[in-house]
Amino acid sequence: MSARSIRIGLLGCGVVGSGFVELLAHERSRIASRFGVTLNLGQILVRDGEKTRPHVARSTFTTNALDVLDGDCDVIVELVGGVDCAGAYVRRALRNGRNVVTANKALLATTGRELFDDADRRGVALGFEASVCGGIPIVQALTRGLAGDSVTSIRGILNGTSNYIVSRMEDGMTFDDALRLAQERGFAEAEPSLDVDGVDAEQKLRILASLAFDEPIVSAAVRGIRGVTGADIEEARADGCVIRHVATATRVPAGVALRIEPRRLSADDPLARVRDEHNAIVVNARATGELLFFGKGAGSMPTAAAVLSDVISIARSSQYARMTG
Amino acid sequence: MSARSIRIGLLGCGVVGSGFVELLAHERSRIASRFGVTLNLGQILVRDGEKTRPHVARSTFTTNALDVLDGDCDVIVELVGGVDCAGAYVRRALRNGRNVVTANKALLATTGRELFDDADRRGVALGFEASVCGGIPIVQALTRGLAGDSVTSIRGILNGTSNYIVSRMEDGMTFDDALRLAQERGFAEAEPSLDVDGVDAEQKLRILASLAFDEPIVSAAVRGIRGVTGADIEEARADGCVIRHVATATRVPAGVALRIEPRRLSADDPLARVRDEHNAIVVNARATGELLFFGKGAGSMPTAAAVLSDVISIARSSQYARMTG
Repeated sequence: MSARSIRIGLLGCGVVGSGFVELLAHERSRIASRFGVTLNLGQILVRDGEKTRPHVARSTFTTNALDVLDGDCDVIVELVGGVDCAGAYVRRALRNGRNVVTANKALLATTGRELFDDADRRGVALGFEASVCGGIPIVQALTRGLAGDSVTSIRGILNGTSNYIVSRMEDGMTFDDALRLAQERGFAEAEPSLDVDGVDAEQKLRILASLAFDEPIVSAAVRGIRGVTGADIEEARADGCVIRHVATATRVPAGVALRIEPRRLSADDPLARVRDEHNAIVVNARATGELLFFGKGAGSMPTAAAVLSDVISIARSSQYARMTG
Repeated sequence: MSARSIRIGLLGCGVVGSGFVELLAHERSRIASRFGVTLNLGQILVRDGEKTRPHVARSTFTTNALDVLDGDCDVIVELVGGVDCAGAYVRRALRNGRNVVTANKALLATTGRELFDDADRRGVALGFEASVCGGIPIVQALTRGLAGDSVTSIRGILNGTSNYIVSRMEDGMTFDDALRLAQERGFAEAEPSLDVDGVDAEQKLRILASLAFDEPIVSAAVRGIRGVTGADIEEARADGCVIRHVATATRVPAGVALRIEPRRLSADDPLARVRDEHNAIVVNARATGELLFFGKGAGSMPTAAAVLSDVISIARSSQYARMTG
C-alpha cells in the first residue's frame, strides 16, 4: 500500500485542539502503516501566535483564518467552538471544496442542515462524530451500523456535567457545592447554564434524532437538573431508585418527540449505573433490539480521538481518492 | 437524490437468510428514500427449491450456486455458514469482482487474511459486521470509530449461549439442564461444543483482535464453561462476585495474548451485569478511555440487520459508484 499524504488545516488550538495535535503526533506512524495514509498538519489558527506549543513549530501558527481556509489543506478541522465565526469558517471551507471535520455541536444543532447541503453540493465530507458524546462512536452507529434497521427510540445520559453533579449529590453534596466542584475539575463552564439547564443535552439529542429518524421532530420538552434537591435523591433512593438527567426521543403519531428531564430510574436500569462524567445511549431498533453504548462523553483526548478517526475515514474514502487522484 | 439500484444475490435462506429477506422487504422503501439506494433481491441459493417462502417469488430460487455467483448481482450475501462451500463461494464471488457481505465467523477466522487480500486485489468490499456479536456494531467501531486511537485491551462476553447457560445456573439449574433449555430455545446447537468449549468465543476474539491491534496474536488460552458447577457459582456469590465466560485480548511484549475462560467478576464489573444471551464488549483505548458496547450477539433478526447495514454501506460507497458509474 503506497502512503497517501493528507494535509490537515486546524482551526483552534485550545483544549481539544491541543489534544488533537498531541494525539496526531503519537498516532501518526501507526496510522500510516495501518491505513496507508500520512497525516500532516498544515497551518493552525491560534489566538496567540507567539505562544509555544508542544509537537508543532511556531511557523505553522497563524492568527488569520484565511491562511488555513484558503490554503492547500485537504481537510479542515474546526475546533474553535461557538456558532458565528465557526459557522463562517466551515461554510467557507466547504464552499472551497474542502472536507471538514468538526466537534461543534452547537453549530450543527443550529445550521447543520445548511452545512450538510453545502457539503453535498460540493461532494465533500462533513465529519461530526466528535460533536455528540465525545469518544462514543454513536454517530456512525446510527448512520452506518443501524442503516438497515428502523430505530424506534433513543434514551440517553448525554450531558456529563449534569451526571457528574447528580453523582456528587448522591454522595451527599448540595447542588451548589457539586456544581462548584465540577467547575474546579473542568467539567463545567464558569457559565454553567448550557449544561445544567438541559440545552447541551437537547442539542445532542436533536442531532442524534435527526440521524436516527426519518420523521421530523415535532416537540421538545426541556428541563435541566437545576432544582433537583438532595431530598429528591434520598426519596428516590428509599424506593430503590436513582435520579438521572435523561434525554429521550420517541416516535409519536406526527413525528418524533424529545424529552429532556431529571427522571427516576429503577436501580436495574442500565442508565441508572452511569455515574460521574460518563455518557450512555440506549438505542432500540426493530430488528436489532436494544443496544447500549457507554463511554466518556467529553474531554480533550476522547474528543480529539473522535476527530482524528473522522479525518482518517475521509482520507481513506475513495470519494477523496477520486477527487485528488 | 436519484435512486441507484443494487442487485443482491443471496446464498442461503435458513434462519438468518430468511430474516434478511423479511427485513429487506420491511425496510426497502425507507432505505430508498433515506439513502437513495434501491435494493433488489436477485437469485437466492436454497437447498429445497420447491419450498415456498414469504416475501420472495419461487422463480428466484436456485439450487445451483453458480446461478448466484456468476449472475449479474452487485453484492453477494453469504449466509450458508460452514467453511468449505462458503469459502469456495466467497472466493469465487470476490474473484468475479463482486462485493461480498458475510456473517460467517468461522470462515473469517480460518481464511480471513486470504479473502481480504482477494477483495483488495479486486477493489471490492468484504463486509463482515454480522460475523462478530450480531447486532452490535463492534467491527465498525474498531475499524472506523477508533481508527485514530490505540486500543490497549478488549474484554468481552462474546458467546451468548455460554452466558445464557451461566445465567440459568445462577437461577439454580444444573449445567446439563441449562444446556438442554438453551437447545430447546434455539440458542445452542445439538452439538454444543463450539459454544460451551470456547471455540466460538475464540474465533470472535481473534477477529476483533486482528481489527484492534497491529501486533500479531502470540498466544491463546481457551477454556469453555463446561466444568463450571453450581458450587462455583454459589461460592462466587458468597464473595459478592459472579462467574462469566470472559474473552480478553491484551498487549504483551511479543504481541497480543488471548485468554478465554470462566472468570470471577466483582458485581460492579460492567460485564457482571450481562445476563442471558446478551453480548458485551469493553474496549480500552489510550485517548478514548473505556467504551462499552452491549446488545444481542446473535439471532436471526439482529444478524440480518447487521448484514443489511453492510450492504447499504457498500451501495453508498463511492468506491462502488466508481466501479459501476
